[in-house]
Amino acid sequence: PTADAAKAPKAPKASKKSKLQVSLKTPKGTKDWADTDMVIREAVFNTLSNIFKKHGGVTIDTPVFELREILAGKYGEDSKLIYNLEDQGGELCSLRYDLTVPFARYVAMNNIQNIKRYHIAKVYRRDQPAMTKGRMREFYQCDFDVAGSFESMVPDAECLSILVEGLTSLGIKDFKIKLNHRKILDGIFQISGVKDEDVRKISSAVDKLDKSPWEAVKKEMTEEKGQSEETADKIGEYVKLNGSLEEVHTILSQDASITSNELAKQGLDEIATLMKYADAFGIDSYISFDLSLARGLDYYTGLIYEAVTSASAPPKNASELKKKAKSVEDASEYVGVGSIAAGGRYDNLVNMFAEASGKKSTKIPCVGISFGVERLFSLIKQRIQTSTDIKPTATQVFVMAFGGGKDWTGYLPERMKVTKQLWDAGIEAEYVYKAKANPRKQFDAAEKAGCHIAVILGKEEYLDGKLRVKRLGQEFADDDGELVNAADIVAIVQERLSQV
Amino acid sequence: PTADAAKAPKAPKASKKSKLQVSLKTPKGTKDWADTDMVIREAVFNTLSNIFKKHGGVTIDTPVFELREILAGKYGEDSKLIYNLEDQGGELCSLRYDLTVPFARYVAMNNIQNIKRYHIAKVYRRDQPAMTKGRMREFYQCDFDVAGSFESMVPDAECLSILVEGLTSLGIKDFKIKLNHRKILDGIFQISGVKDEDVRKISSAVDKLDKSPWEAVKKEMTEEKGQSEETADKIGEYVKLNGSLEEVHTILSQDASITSNELAKQGLDEIATLMKYADAFGIDSYISFDLSLARGLDYYTGLIYEAVTSASAPPKNASELKKKAKSVEDASEYVGVGSIAAGGRYDNLVNMFAEASGKKSTKIPCVGISFGVERLFSLIKQRIQTSTDIKPTATQVFVMAFGGGKDWTGYLPERMKVTKQLWDAGIEAEYVYKAKANPRKQFDAAEKAGCHIAVILGKEEYLDGKLRVKRLGQEFADDDGELVNAADIVAIVQERLSQV
Repeated sequence: PTADAAKAPKAPKASKKSKLQVSLKTPKGTKDWADTDMVIREAVFNTLSNIFKKHGGVTIDTPVFELREILAGKYGEDSKLIYNLEDQGGELCSLRYDLTVPFARYVAMNNIQNIKRYHIAKVYRRDQPAMTKGRMREFYQCDFDVAGSFESMVPDAECLSILVEGLTSLGIKDFKIKLNHRKILDGIFQISGVKDEDVRKISSAVDKLDKSPWEAVKKEMTEEKGQSEETADKIGEYVKLNGSLEEVHTILSQDASITSNELAKQGLDEIATLMKYADAFGIDSYISFDLSLARGLDYYTGLIYEAVTSASAPPKNASELKKKAKSVEDASEYVGVGSIAAGGRYDNLVNMFAEASGKKSTKIPCVGISFGVERLFSLIKQRIQTSTDIKPTATQVFVMAFGGGKDWTGYLPERMKVTKQLWDAGIEAEYVYKAKANPRKQFDAAEKAGCHIAVILGKEEYLDGKLRVKRLGQEFADDDGELVNAADIVAIVQERLSQV
Repeated sequence: PTADAAKAPKAPKASKKSKLQVSLKTPKGTKDWADTDMVIREAVFNTLSNIFKKHGGVTIDTPVFELREILAGKYGEDSKLIYNLEDQGGELCSLRYDLTVPFARYVAMNNIQNIKRYHIAKVYRRDQPAMTKGRMREFYQCDFDVAGSFESMVPDAECLSILVEGLTSLGIKDFKIKLNHRKILDGIFQISGVKDEDVRKISSAVDKLDKSPWEAVKKEMTEEKGQSEETADKIGEYVKLNGSLEEVHTILSQDASITSNELAKQGLDEIATLMKYADAFGIDSYISFDLSLARGLDYYTGLIYEAVTSASAPPKNASELKKKAKSVEDASEYVGVGSIAAGGRYDNLVNMFAEASGKKSTKIPCVGISFGVERLFSLIKQRIQTSTDIKPTATQVFVMAFGGGKDWTGYLPERMKVTKQLWDAGIEAEYVYKAKANPRKQFDAAEKAGCHIAVILGKEEYLDGKLRVKRLGQEFADDDGELVNAADIVAIVQERLSQV
């Protein structure tokens, strides 16, 4: 260690320097998107928005922040994760936590009776991020929601179909949809002896079953949340049930406690209806009816569902990895990515806004599906990068000048003039921002931009009103191109590009 | 009034009700985008991003908030308009005020030597909004910036060309580009006797000349900002100069005070270079060299410019309208929209970040242009709405069922099955979410969605494996369509759609 210290005698005085120093970074849990990641992400957004449009969706855009009171009381235990804006005088606002609550606010505010809307935008959660597994504080959601009174389970089935279409279109195949019904779950809580006022907090205990073993959840119910041993055990028997829609439906239909409970019976009937439509859409094989799925958010009232892949669960040796991790924040090794898409039915949210604002009460039932792009991204990136070569820019044509000698100007304004003609015709074109550039440098720049065609201003040829058009790429290395009239350049380039 | 009071005896007790009541609105200065506005806005973004791509631009996406220290000291007097996030523990953050500072942070952070990047995203300013003229607190900017060391004035000229291409592509023709050079302006301040430490605040006084008369600006300089009468008058003589690049360049070139001032001379030489390139791009006619343009932001170091239209200036009778306005916030009647696009050169910003973070000092000169979409929007909307019919959804095909009688089910799962086949082939299709819907209602829904083709499941025909394909629209009202094999439906619909 003494040798090391001797080697670095000029270590900056930390105390003085750190005062002046700015951290050149993005805030914790946020990131810049650039380069091929950005190209891939745009492709993902395109894929999903095309699916949303295919289903008749229209898009809206709401502000990044909402009045704080709009978000209040919508997210249960997760409300503490909401980002507030500083009170700088005027209204109190918070960054949106999801796209669902702003959507319901929009529907209520504009007295909309029915709409299929999609929205692709960023949402904000002050979570402890484990970066590399895709948990972020600022992340994109891609949401499709149907608002309006329709035939039972029809829009629900369509959201599930969109979920399957979305994931398969993104190349994700090994996923399953865990599905449950809030009314069945609430019925089970009633049957098991949970008081009405305790239902939501017991529900959020159940919600932890994907990460914690039953023993831990039971302990939370009995020790922290005041349930009896007997109640917890009864819940435990039900929430371990899972299987195909048909299997679990059959089991529950034969359970007299379930069928005699009004809530559970309603939920069960809706599941029976859903089975018909899931069959019509051919998506039943993806669905696992799983009574342990609870979903954290307060606003769900009916069907709830989430898609998981093998990457969703923590690795088998998670607890070992947790011990080895360098810091609490470096959780990337021992957590799973969680669900990659999720949603459900929320029939009271719009009305909650209408009533709270003093409007006439109007029931606008809603159901939706939300894709978590960041969580999907690593899976998608892997697939896209192996299958295609991503072009860095859209540039098609590079305008160059070749010449030499004492009087050689480099033809910079002339290159600009030719390039402008191409731009005006809608053609993507670039040139080197240098008065005189040698041919090698210009070809290198063209190659870097991924150009297909070069338009060359030869020193003498240009004075004769001629330009040279040449295909770029290894296979055209020996091709000198063709000399054409400068006046025809746009038409000729367009024709050559159509052959690329 | 007594009669009125009698008619409304059940007025809610305001005090009690207002406690519970939620304001069903977006925060002040923000709005929802929906319906045709959204369709138009998407078209505007497409137009601009296609232009940016045409010039070799790549896109990046930065977080909506940055570390507060990243934004500090970049915006001069406007820094008070920055939105801060509440200190909820952890880093102090603020919403981005523009896209330029995050871009410079990105370039410095990643040691990027050169990049042409575009970015279309929302920025945040706690301004007093005058809604209807397009001043908002959350609004979109569409930015194109070039970072890197290049031949003088070449990227600057390209940004000006993009400005012209952008506005003309959006159908805006009656605009002019006010252009000035920070070095010339700073030279004028030196010549006039302004001390170096006063330059920025005198510059921001000059910046008000588009809204205030010279007398008011002079008063600010002498009474508030400590300049002598003589200094103010000397500045006043220069800043009234404007005309074509050539005209003003000629006048300044003949002014010995200017040509003997090092800063002003540098600026003037750059203007001479720019004249060549503006000519090459054929954009000189749009440019007005205007010495009163100062631009508020601290970070500009060279060329500065902004595009204005007739709607940019306040109306002639502004002061009269101001008196009549109902509230301070209802300024829409007496303010102009301001500049519709603006930008300039900022050669020190990237290095400022590099140095402040303790990195090696590296000069990465930058220049950019930013389009203010909200301000452009009303102008654009008018033009688009008169010229085209905007289709509300992308839906092409409506799947219907016709039948009747006691045993008629409405073929809902069957319609879903057929629709799913179309979706799987990438065809935009919808159906009515109702078990049994009469033909009228189904045709109405198809029309509302703007569909071109109906696929009809006839009660008997469907049992025979047949579907009916019919063109929609007034001119096909008497056409019963064609009966086809259900197995061929996708290919037949695709073929029909290609003929629409």
